[in-house]
Amino acid sequence: MDSWWSQAQRLLADGRARVDAALERWLPATSELPVRVHESMRYSTLAPGKRLRPVLALAVCETMGGREESILPSACALEMIHAFSLIHDDLPAMDDDDLRRGRPTNHVRFGEATAILAGDALCSLAFEVIAVHTPDPSAVADLVRELAVAVGTQGMIGGQIMDLENEGQPPRLDLVREIHRRKTAALLRAACRLGARAADASSADTAALSRFGEALGLAFQITDDILDETSTAAELGKGTKKDLERGKLTWPACVGLDASRQAASDHVEEAVLAIRHIDNSGSLESLARFVVSRNT
Amino acid sequence: MDSWWSQAQRLLADGRARVDAALERWLPATSELPVRVHESMRYSTLAPGKRLRPVLALAVCETMGGREESILPSACALEMIHAFSLIHDDLPAMDDDDLRRGRPTNHVRFGEATAILAGDALCSLAFEVIAVHTPDPSAVADLVRELAVAVGTQGMIGGQIMDLENEGQPPRLDLVREIHRRKTAALLRAACRLGARAADASSADTAALSRFGEALGLAFQITDDILDETSTAAELGKGTKKDLERGKLTWPACVGLDASRQAASDHVEEAVLAIRHIDNSGSLESLARFVVSRNT
Repeated sequence: MDSWWSQAQRLLADGRARVDAALERWLPATSELPVRVHESMRYSTLAPGKRLRPVLALAVCETMGGREESILPSACALEMIHAFSLIHDDLPAMDDDDLRRGRPTNHVRFGEATAILAGDALCSLAFEVIAVHTPDPSAVADLVRELAVAVGTQGMIGGQIMDLENEGQPPRLDLVREIHRRKTAALLRAACRLGARAADASSADTAALSRFGEALGLAFQITDDILDETSTAAELGKGTKKDLERGKLTWPACVGLDASRQAASDHVEEAVLAIRHIDNSGSLESLARFVVSRNT
Repeated sequence: MDSWWSQAQRLLADGRARVDAALERWLPATSELPVRVHESMRYSTLAPGKRLRPVLALAVCETMGGREESILPSACALEMIHAFSLIHDDLPAMDDDDLRRGRPTNHVRFGEATAILAGDALCSLAFEVIAVHTPDPSAVADLVRELAVAVGTQGMIGGQIMDLENEGQPPRLDLVREIHRRKTAALLRAACRLGARAADASSADTAALSRFGEALGLAFQITDDILDETSTAAELGKGTKKDLERGKLTWPACVGLDASRQAASDHVEEAVLAIRHIDNSGSLESLARFVVSRNT
């Protein structure tokens, strides 16, 4: 039996290949009009990246005995939503970032108008892909609802607003936790819930997987905060030390780096504990441990 | 029997009241965090306006024997998508407009970051409302697909991109028609198709209603082009004569005002002809005639 590290690497590489093949098919072709916005959508969605959200959705679905084709549309939708959020977050009116995944950000490469519309189109396409490609139409209402709730103002978009609104405020851990929960953990939790729904998991197992996803999401964002402070742009493929510059509310700003590393690790243990009773949860455990051990 | 004008006025007033009551319920409350983005979403969605898209969806559904509760979620989703598109189209990086529906545009009132995120949240909420509130879950996949296709790069967003990309180009009627078809007609056509689907209309009737919606949509946008050239800002509640200033491709720029009025009228006749065989289609006919006779 191999280590959790190599298990996670294998899951990520294999999952990414399956997700990228489907994204290639379901993103609009650059041979179709309007060409430039299609290029812009593909540029950000197919950029180098971990594909953590879709891989997590696939892993949950398969752990719970579901089939790949039931979850693949939702998995791709999660990555489209993630790409849409990165494009809009990087805009000059928002975080004003020039570098993302080692390349110029979308608006630097394609201009602001195209970047805004490419993000908009990815948001809509995410729901279209679920509606069109999910094999069981009777599952679509649940899948769309789960995703939309995680995207909206109680989830990712609400987190981004609160993140912007609280720049420069005195660090307060309860507020940072709430921002991280919405901005990052909501979509990772949704990845787990979509995987559970696609596999027709019981409501008890779905609740356990929700707790797993939320704890993993908090661990992920705390690790992001730490990496922003401790890495170089070359290592991370995006600008670093920008949180501090902008007075962002981060975990390290509240409790320091060492206590943040401890908090990330505690959240992983909480995640792992939540699914301990689920058979064959080793792959999910390996992904949770990877999330805080990664250096990009 | 009263005139089509008063019939259209009655349908619009009555439909608007029903749609606004539902929007009030389904838009996030300003008592909930994050307050400001919720205010921004409500500001644009509940702004004075005709609510033409949801009223059309209600009228089609009821003409085809469907029930209000089957179409109301999709009707509200259409208005949320319309509000989202107006917020983003008005941004400085896009059409850079300050006035809309007689009031400051969303980014002038709330700032660019909030306006971008409010638009994003309305896009996602539109699909959520369909998934959560449609009484028959088995209809949701079709409803989400219809709406998303009309929103995406083959529809509204694609039209906005082509509109921006072709500013200053020599006027060409085939290109103007394609931009108007995507930018405006796609969502009005979707309103009709959603109404038909919610009423379980036959595929022949759905095809007829699609032709009706598309022709009505072209008539609507040609009329918009004419009003931009012939009205004052006070009459229209938004900046006027801006199309010419920016070198936008419009119908009058291709063929002049008189031939544009004729084209709008021809498209209404085409719309009315498409549904002549449908029983009780008088209300739809009155809405089509209203579209080219309005002065705001």
